[in-house]
Amino acid sequence: MIKTFDEKNYTWDGVDTLVYKQDGSPFKDVTRQVLFNGAFDIPCQFRYFEVKPGGYSTLEHHEHTHMVMIFRGQGQCLLGDTIVDVKVGDFIEIPSHTIHQFRANKGDYVGFLCLVNVERDKVQIPSAEEIEALKENPAIKEFLESC
Amino acid sequence: MIKTFDEKNYTWDGVDTLVYKQDGSPFKDVTRQVLFNGAFDIPCQFRYFEVKPGGYSTLEHHEHTHMVMIFRGQGQCLLGDTIVDVKVGDFIEIPSHTIHQFRANKGDYVGFLCLVNVERDKVQIPSAEEIEALKENPAIKEFLESC
Repeated sequence: MIKTFDEKNYTWDGVDTLVYKQDGSPFKDVTRQVLFNGAFDIPCQFRYFEVKPGGYSTLEHHEHTHMVMIFRGQGQCLLGDTIVDVKVGDFIEIPSHTIHQFRANKGDYVGFLCLVNVERDKVQIPSAEEIEALKENPAIKEFLESC
Repeated sequence: MIKTFDEKNYTWDGVDTLVYKQDGSPFKDVTRQVLFNGAFDIPCQFRYFEVKPGGYSTLEHHEHTHMVMIFRGQGQCLLGDTIVDVKVGDFIEIPSHTIHQFRANKGDYVGFLCLVNVERDKVQIPSAEEIEALKENPAIKEFLESC
C-alpha cells in the first residue's frame, strides 16, 4: 500500500512510466505515471506528468476539471487567457473548458501531480480559429509560438 | 485559480492554517490546510497536514479511505500491523478501517497531502483492547509508547 518514491529518477516503486499519447494532439517530451487509479470511495485518478526541459503538454480543453500540484522544477502554465510562472508546491485548479498547457523552462523539468475523475470526457484540441483568437494577446502569442 | 506555495512557511496563498481538532482524539502539533474543497466533477477534499518535529497525528481508523503523499520531511507511518519509514514523495493508500498514524521524526517535520471524499464517516479511535492487541507486536508497542 506504499509506493516508495525514487527522488533521483522521479519514479515510484511498481508504477510504470508511460509515454503520454493522445491521438493527433501535439505535445513534446511528456511522460505519465498513474499513482492511483480510483478505488473505494475516491473515484479519481492521481497521476504524475513530467515534462522535460523545453517540452510542453498538449494545448487542450475539456469538460472535466483538473486539480494540479507542481511537484518538480518550474515552468509556465497557460490557463485561459493568462500565463503564470509555476514552481514546486503551486496548486492549480483548471475549470471546465479552460484552455491550458504546461511548459517546462528551457533549463528545467516541470513535473506535476494531476487529479481527475476516473470517468471523464475526451480532450479537445482548440481549433485554428480559437488559437488565432488566443494569439491576439501578445504574451500568449509568444508563449504558443515558443512551443 | 492558482494558489501559490510559500516554500519557506509551507503555506499557500489564500489558504487558512487550521489547528487540527477532533473531539476527544489525541494528537500532537498538527495543522491542516484545505487546498481543495470539492467542486465540479471531483467530489474530494485535498488537504495538507503538517506535523511538527516529535508530533503525531491521531491514531485512528474509519470507513473512508485516504490517499496520502508525503510532501515535507520524514517520519514514520503506522499502517495496520506495519510501521514504515516515509519521506517526501512516498505515496500511501490507507484502506477502509485500517488503523493508521503519522509521526514526525524528532528532528524533522512530516507534512503530507491527503485526499478524501467530501462525504465521509467520522473518525474512530481504537479501543483500549484494540491498542493492547496492536502492542503485541514489539515494534508497534515501541512506536505507540513513543507517541
